[in-house]
Amino acid sequence: MKRGFGSDNHSGVSPEILQALAAANVDHALAYGDDEWCARTEQLFREHFGPQAKPYFVFNGTGANVLCIDAMCRSHEAVVCAETAHINVDECGAPQRVVGCRLLTVDTPDGKLTPELVRTRLHGFGFEHHSQPRAISISQPTELGTLYTLSEIRALADLAHTYNMYLHMDGARLANAAVALGCSFKEMTTDLGVDCLSFGGTKNGLLMGESCVLLNPALDIDMKYRRKQMTQLCSKMRFMAAQFEAYLITGLWRRNAEHSNRMAQLLHSQLSSLDPQLKVMYPVQVNSVFVQLPTEVWHALQQEYFFYDWDEANDVVRWMCSFDTTEDDIHAFLASLKRLLNK
Amino acid sequence: MKRGFGSDNHSGVSPEILQALAAANVDHALAYGDDEWCARTEQLFREHFGPQAKPYFVFNGTGANVLCIDAMCRSHEAVVCAETAHINVDECGAPQRVVGCRLLTVDTPDGKLTPELVRTRLHGFGFEHHSQPRAISISQPTELGTLYTLSEIRALADLAHTYNMYLHMDGARLANAAVALGCSFKEMTTDLGVDCLSFGGTKNGLLMGESCVLLNPALDIDMKYRRKQMTQLCSKMRFMAAQFEAYLITGLWRRNAEHSNRMAQLLHSQLSSLDPQLKVMYPVQVNSVFVQLPTEVWHALQQEYFFYDWDEANDVVRWMCSFDTTEDDIHAFLASLKRLLNK
Amino acid sequence: MKRGFGSDNHSGVSPEILQALAAANVDHALAYGDDEWCARTEQLFREHFGPQAKPYFVFNGTGANVLCIDAMCRSHEAVVCAETAHINVDECGAPQRVVGCRLLTVDTPDGKLTPELVRTRLHGFGFEHHSQPRAISISQPTELGTLYTLSEIRALADLAHTYNMYLHMDGARLANAAVALGCSFKEMTTDLGVDCLSFGGTKNGLLMGESCVLLNPALDIDMKYRRKQMTQLCSKMRFMAAQFEAYLITGLWRRNAEHSNRMAQLLHSQLSSLDPQLKVMYPVQVNSVFVQLPTEVWHALQQEYFFYDWDEANDVVRWMCSFDTTEDDIHAFLASLKRLLNK
Amino acid sequence: MKRGFGSDNHSGVSPEILQALAAANVDHALAYGDDEWCARTEQLFREHFGPQAKPYFVFNGTGANVLCIDAMCRSHEAVVCAETAHINVDECGAPQRVVGCRLLTVDTPDGKLTPELVRTRLHGFGFEHHSQPRAISISQPTELGTLYTLSEIRALADLAHTYNMYLHMDGARLANAAVALGCSFKEMTTDLGVDCLSFGGTKNGLLMGESCVLLNPALDIDMKYRRKQMTQLCSKMRFMAAQFEAYLITGLWRRNAEHSNRMAQLLHSQLSSLDPQLKVMYPVQVNSVFVQLPTEVWHALQQEYFFYDWDEANDVVRWMCSFDTTEDDIHAFLASLKRLLNK
Repeated sequence: MKRGFGSDNHSGVSPEILQALAAANVDHALAYGDDEWCARTEQLFREHFGPQAKPYFVFNGTGANVLCIDAMCRSHEAVVCAETAHINVDECGAPQRVVGCRLLTVDTPDGKLTPELVRTRLHGFGFEHHSQPRAISISQPTELGTLYTLSEIRALADLAHTYNMYLHMDGARLANAAVALGCSFKEMTTDLGVDCLSFGGTKNGLLMGESCVLLNPALDIDMKYRRKQMTQLCSKMRFMAAQFEAYLITGLWRRNAEHSNRMAQLLHSQLSSLDPQLKVMYPVQVNSVFVQLPTEVWHALQQEYFFYDWDEANDVVRWMCSFDTTEDDIHAFLASLKRLLNK
Repeated sequence: MKRGFGSDNHSGVSPEILQALAAANVDHALAYGDDEWCARTEQLFREHFGPQAKPYFVFNGTGANVLCIDAMCRSHEAVVCAETAHINVDECGAPQRVVGCRLLTVDTPDGKLTPELVRTRLHGFGFEHHSQPRAISISQPTELGTLYTLSEIRALADLAHTYNMYLHMDGARLANAAVALGCSFKEMTTDLGVDCLSFGGTKNGLLMGESCVLLNPALDIDMKYRRKQMTQLCSKMRFMAAQFEAYLITGLWRRNAEHSNRMAQLLHSQLSSLDPQLKVMYPVQVNSVFVQLPTEVWHALQQEYFFYDWDEANDVVRWMCSFDTTEDDIHAFLASLKRLLNK
Repeated sequence: MKRGFGSDNHSGVSPEILQALAAANVDHALAYGDDEWCARTEQLFREHFGPQAKPYFVFNGTGANVLCIDAMCRSHEAVVCAETAHINVDECGAPQRVVGCRLLTVDTPDGKLTPELVRTRLHGFGFEHHSQPRAISISQPTELGTLYTLSEIRALADLAHTYNMYLHMDGARLANAAVALGCSFKEMTTDLGVDCLSFGGTKNGLLMGESCVLLNPALDIDMKYRRKQMTQLCSKMRFMAAQFEAYLITGLWRRNAEHSNRMAQLLHSQLSSLDPQLKVMYPVQVNSVFVQLPTEVWHALQQEYFFYDWDEANDVVRWMCSFDTTEDDIHAFLASLKRLLNK
Repeated sequence: MKRGFGSDNHSGVSPEILQALAAANVDHALAYGDDEWCARTEQLFREHFGPQAKPYFVFNGTGANVLCIDAMCRSHEAVVCAETAHINVDECGAPQRVVGCRLLTVDTPDGKLTPELVRTRLHGFGFEHHSQPRAISISQPTELGTLYTLSEIRALADLAHTYNMYLHMDGARLANAAVALGCSFKEMTTDLGVDCLSFGGTKNGLLMGESCVLLNPALDIDMKYRRKQMTQLCSKMRFMAAQFEAYLITGLWRRNAEHSNRMAQLLHSQLSSLDPQLKVMYPVQVNSVFVQLPTEVWHALQQEYFFYDWDEANDVVRWMCSFDTTEDDIHAFLASLKRLLNK
């Protein structure tokens, strides 16, 4: 397929990851996580997230999100999240089916919850007719490419804990957030009171691998059974751990994320040069650019490139940069756009 | 870890599979299955299982089994299976949690259902207090390493269809069965009336990949949503398809299965030479050997090698051969056993 | 407890219902619905809702709503409803747990959906990441005491059917709606294209009894098993049928609903006399009145009478009239209110 | 319908219960359990089961059983029960759908578990592939009309607690067991270590009412939300409590159970007189008689009387006596049987 800006999972795998897979392909190893790769990689997670961090490797982001929710909530409880949250919009109802709980959604201007917005859903405690709020879930970065500051995250964690609730972070693109904010994973999560985390790798160069990371040990109850029962237990787990090991130990997470963020900045700045009237919808803080275009222009551009219309009613489209996006990719893409805009 | 006979998922990945992953690592591809690898591999499944076959790739065997069950049954319906079936014993209740249905289990001498055994569970049709039998599930080979003949499978399919039920085959090790019976996949499934299949790859050399294969098109309803909602949708699907493509197109499935079956035969025959009194519990038809040993012997042997006690109460252990088992592995293992038996 | 305006389920049972229970208490009857009372009452439902109507008696409104949703939707599908809908707010997540589906909520000014509002949620069809919209659910009357006109209902039914969706009506207080609109049950449901209905009795004089009524026979699949499996099958069903028989055949539904509606009108008109500045939040169309009061007034009034604050942030409270509300009840209540307002 | 021996829920309601309903039909009461009838009746449960007992009223036996299981088990856990247990055979899979857990069934000669039988299912602890045994469930009396002695119950409770498991008792007919054993409810449950109980009323003269009774306070977590979310919360709860109040305070439970047990003894003894060759399958300890009859005889008898064939393959039928069974009923029934046997 033609290279483009459809999604950061349209690109393949970082060479370092394939090398790690090959290197792990030696002899025998116990299945289901009792191997030396998993032991070493769990240690790496503790180094990156703090000594209490405990990763549960899963296959995909849906698995990580649902396992996190299951760790926090019973079926009669609820998760407060943005209307645009991936767990609300893009899991085809997996939390409802697998956990059986409610999501209490909040409209936001930019994909970000605030304590004020969350508080609008914090009522009905003790009233048996209402699902009981038990968790707040934020995406860092958000699905709109925006970022929470560290103090904003801390405020939400504090709010959650005040109500005996938990704070979950959907970090499918956590590396992009960390490099954008110039902080470590731990500074963005554990240090602020985040209780559990969906830590993504697939969108930043891995072949296949995500992790439910518990940062609050109180959540670490029966997790291995939950993961298995929800169909997310990998047998040859060493190959999942080996990917994360390479990702964390070689700094690949940082290199890839820095690159894709930089490419988005380039795309953004070139867009402005191309046509200062083009409306970029949200601050470009990580690796995505949301743009409003004339209908006929984005329709025509989709004939040449695959990308998602994000909000068809308002002619907003999404362009994602990836770890393998090149400057040439951007120039070629913008050349097409320029041609179509000038028609 | 020391090489041994713990499980066929303790071995790594066939080199052909790693090569296929590397070869697929080019440019961009649409995620979630809309790529050329998936298109080609789906065509391969049609060649191997017949033109109506439709594979849905999933991450693991639990995913394949649960997706098959979900395709066949509503929550108020039931699956008849052997007490020893993987779906009953080894999924930590995934069918119950994800589908919500009942399993109606039958005790068997050798892991194999028969029409007579199945009929003992076929009652209560139309009675709202009873879960309605809707499917029969068999494992080929069984969890005990035994095989159904083609005519036995056909008889169960016919029985199922007489009752407006479906026949599911758990083929986590289907390749081992096919080479043992000297037949094609199609001859062992579609041609006999099997309605859907869990087709395994991970236990026979793949890195990670299984498939729910619908053979009866009437089951192909809303499958993409079901797969997604039960957390089994892979994003970079080309890398799963590429594994199956290499597996099927190069005959890897056959070579690996022939090898592991032959190694089990070698292990079996050498065991008989070692001590004709040793009781092998079931016919050695594929790549596993179940043996009854003096308690102290298998306890001591487990100090040197990892393997599962299968039935601790009766001192039965399971030894699995893999695609990478060598004759030297077997000789070394038996030398240890001999030493311990002679103590 | 002091008589008041807390809810229409704070009152007891209409005498006609207790008489019907006593009359049904003769000899033996088959359990689970195979009795003459059920047969007669099902015929009454056909007379009131049309020859295709099929009632499934259940214990409570939650059961009726969840059984209706289960009849319409698979777990990967979704129901569009008002944010204020009982199925969204007041079932503690029962649809999520029992059916596993999503609810797609819409903010409304008055609890009423419109085709325009519903259309904002009708997208993502065929996209496996999104729950597929399969039903629209409206409450008639709404939880805010407002009513859909017949043509408004028809427009929503037409919209649903255009998208191959179903229209569900939560009619926990359907009798109040029917007498307010001066139409029959059939004219308000079947004739307009409503596909299924939660038909309430408990809030209008029954002891305990609701019904999931299928108006579209295409939905009538495996319903008896679904009802049983979700714990809603009554054994001595004749006593549930006998209540509905008395309710429908004697016109009790109409008498009780007319009375409680009239009492609400009286309460409303007297309120206006009491203080023309008092803000009544919604048109008083059935048996409830929502009023905005000074905080200290409704707090003080709650010391004397039990009632729910509906929107504490905006000082809105709800007062419900019941089939047994008397004019004296209203005068006494308003006397208290008057005293407190004048403090 | 002709009076007969089909089930103890074919009879109607004890007059004392209808009187209690009428007496409770005064003025207003808070819904959902916050009323004086509930308060008084909960106190009665404490008197009958001990000061720690906590009843949660539900609509039917399925609700009581599923709520008890939900109190004890997460979805990845399992309940050990007899193959013949109502929760296994007669709930249409409600535990699987609502709780998502597994039932580990054991074949028994007489419907009764023993520690030896239970131990056959107590393995795999800590192994994530296996559902974790968390509860033992027994029926007292069993579905076959047999009884556990007090010491047998204590042995099972002790076994459960040794394994950090719970003991549940399905007491749909607990009153029949108590009068047969000549003990109080407390002596048969709390005093022996039973952790929770499904306490039935409907089969012994109530209109509609069962209760999940927690005897172990450690289980009393979030119960009100669970009951609501699984659709089992009654609104006009006073009318459920009022039935149990009359049942417990007037000794109705005892009178009705003594009567139905005595009628079963009469039926049993008359059967023996009728034909000493007739095989009664189980000891007649409560209100049921299981008999093996020539096929053509019970087929012909079913033309005159409704009753269930219990084991059609072995020509075993079940006859139940009820609180309203008369000696005349038995004589008439036996006259028919005698006529058919002599044909």
